[in-house]
Amino acid sequence: MTVKKPQPGHILPPLIKGGLRGVMAAGFKAAGISCGIKKTGAKDLAMILSATPAYCAGMFTRNRVKAAPVLIAMERVKSGRSRGILVNSGNANACTGKAGFKAALDTASFFEKKLGLKKGELLIASTGVIGVPLPADKIQGGADALIRGLSPQGLGLAAEAIMTTDAFPKSAAMKADIGGKTITVAGIAKGAGMICPDMATMLAFFMTDANIKGPALKAALRESVEKTFNSIMVDNDTSTNDTVLALANGFCKGPEIKKNGPHYRAFTGLLTDAAKRLAHMVVEDGEGATRFIEIEVSGAASDKEAKAAARAVGQSMLVKCAFFGGDPNWGRILCAIGNSGVRLREDKADIFLNNVRVVRNGLDTGREKQAAKALKARNVRVEVGLGSGSGKALLWTTDLSYEYVKINSAYRT
Amino acid sequence: MTVKKPQPGHILPPLIKGGLRGVMAAGFKAAGISCGIKKTGAKDLAMILSATPAYCAGMFTRNRVKAAPVLIAMERVKSGRSRGILVNSGNANACTGKAGFKAALDTASFFEKKLGLKKGELLIASTGVIGVPLPADKIQGGADALIRGLSPQGLGLAAEAIMTTDAFPKSAAMKADIGGKTITVAGIAKGAGMICPDMATMLAFFMTDANIKGPALKAALRESVEKTFNSIMVDNDTSTNDTVLALANGFCKGPEIKKNGPHYRAFTGLLTDAAKRLAHMVVEDGEGATRFIEIEVSGAASDKEAKAAARAVGQSMLVKCAFFGGDPNWGRILCAIGNSGVRLREDKADIFLNNVRVVRNGLDTGREKQAAKALKARNVRVEVGLGSGSGKALLWTTDLSYEYVKINSAYRT
Repeated sequence: MTVKKPQPGHILPPLIKGGLRGVMAAGFKAAGISCGIKKTGAKDLAMILSATPAYCAGMFTRNRVKAAPVLIAMERVKSGRSRGILVNSGNANACTGKAGFKAALDTASFFEKKLGLKKGELLIASTGVIGVPLPADKIQGGADALIRGLSPQGLGLAAEAIMTTDAFPKSAAMKADIGGKTITVAGIAKGAGMICPDMATMLAFFMTDANIKGPALKAALRESVEKTFNSIMVDNDTSTNDTVLALANGFCKGPEIKKNGPHYRAFTGLLTDAAKRLAHMVVEDGEGATRFIEIEVSGAASDKEAKAAARAVGQSMLVKCAFFGGDPNWGRILCAIGNSGVRLREDKADIFLNNVRVVRNGLDTGREKQAAKALKARNVRVEVGLGSGSGKALLWTTDLSYEYVKINSAYRT
Repeated sequence: MTVKKPQPGHILPPLIKGGLRGVMAAGFKAAGISCGIKKTGAKDLAMILSATPAYCAGMFTRNRVKAAPVLIAMERVKSGRSRGILVNSGNANACTGKAGFKAALDTASFFEKKLGLKKGELLIASTGVIGVPLPADKIQGGADALIRGLSPQGLGLAAEAIMTTDAFPKSAAMKADIGGKTITVAGIAKGAGMICPDMATMLAFFMTDANIKGPALKAALRESVEKTFNSIMVDNDTSTNDTVLALANGFCKGPEIKKNGPHYRAFTGLLTDAAKRLAHMVVEDGEGATRFIEIEVSGAASDKEAKAAARAVGQSMLVKCAFFGGDPNWGRILCAIGNSGVRLREDKADIFLNNVRVVRNGLDTGREKQAAKALKARNVRVEVGLGSGSGKALLWTTDLSYEYVKINSAYRT
């Protein structure tokens, strides 16, 4: 079912230093096993469990076609509390109708009973092929092994078990002293594209022992995701299954982190760092990616327009092809921004490619050779000034390579 | 300067029959020569001239970054009258600042004087690389040869002279008896993508001997372009130079075609047929295209939503890769539509791929093998029913192949 990815050798090094792999937040356990959904025998079932009810927050795909587990998790996070997350890979349970919805609910209930939880205490997520009935029997058959496997050291296995076309598992943990206590934010993610809809797609789960309740957690999650997962793109689509969940169980015994309190910014920064590390890993694992591209737009009329301009550049097939070829083709960048409809002063526009100024006040600087040389690097930084205000945005994306076409045109077997 | 295209052997046959190549409307002449802008020595300068002042209408790129000739032609069509069009290829005269604007104006004036026309009677257009100063001296140096070459048989040469990455010249003519007279609509176009911004990009010019004045011509052009050039896409970008112009000189001596008159629909149909033929040629010549894909969306809440849904499918890199690989991956189609934000009843959605029903009421029909077999054809028809209303749209696009990436990543030489 899984399309072969290029070897991990093509992967670029993570940009953020200091992440701790395999570290879990206090009071959480995780596990990852194979229950037989993937024909390869690879891991395909993961669980994260808090020792006590945790506060929870979630963000979900804006795609109008939403998978059954997305609809169920959206409903369940409204209660603000959860004990954990059950995730399968290999099947997205999307476009599966009423039967898919029932299979998801039944499976969650089955695990809740096994664990002695109340109905609705488990959040769920699925990722994998679209349109194929969920094999609920296989998932339920894996319950005993999965629950037996739950351990504070199990996060790495859970990260493996949520992979689909991913070339490597993605986990990160960040620690900081906040309010006199060490707080940990641990997270795992999967995704090798904003979407690959038959492997429907981006999932990320964060566990923290911070003492933070639902509304503040939700605000912090929203802010973090906007600057990280909502600022990456591999292709232009958003999956039917995209889900980000955060659980906070208060095990650090520190003071409560309130929205307008003294520790909120520090906590949000910690969560953002963990999310950024995972988001960058998704880009680095981007399908067929040979380059990691950072796009910074400044001088826009607003932050919103800056982001729209950055997205236009990041989603242009022509810009992405040019970077694959190491071509400092700034005309494509300016053209993409012109198409985004944002305000720009063409006679004030500036473009730098890896610190080489290729456009000054909207005109060619004649430094194409230097820029071509600078674009031999695997990490590409594009800076665009629009000369229209003080809005700015930062976005990360990949190039568009033969390998991307190969991965996404290979007939599913 | 020009990137090598694959051989014309990959091109698909035009879908509309009955077009007449090389036929011109009465009272018009055309010419195409080489003036030395293209280093290869290929033709790069074209002219179309009406024997008397013609009514004119134009439609232009919505990109906020507009080339100098676009800004000038936008201003000039406002008068409603024109004698002809001067076009160069090999240089887009975009992102060239005030100097580029002056070079365009000076060149137009130079030709107007040579031809004994009033200032402003010539419309202009450019296509080619962005950001390079327009070689006005070369264009003016070609004036005598170009004017000498003007002939009723010259349309084919003009079609050649406006090519950039095009694999073949694109011309079409349609004739019909309207109001007791034979009316001809002749047209030429260039483009091998909605955009290839360093070869900035889509141009189309229509000449007709119909007796139709400015406002009616404009309305007919708008309607025709909406159903043809605005319904094709190769990639997601709109060029800085996109221009469509229509000239009508009344040489047929027929009754005036008025907006609410008896002949308006017949004329608009004729213009639409000519435009559709040229638009399909652009798709067939799409960069790296191995398939000609027709997307028909019905059952949308409105025609506008149907078009948005069709565009979402047509611009999805994942859908296009799947078609390149002959993969009947309907999950990607439904996912793309879900992302477009249009209303759809997932439980009423239907998808046919080359007449094989792969989705019924939002669920897989299990006919993947038949669909894969049907997708071996070079012409692909995608029919999507959204179950939300009676809105419909038709759109044409290409697949996304290795060759596309190759063409657009090759470093410009």
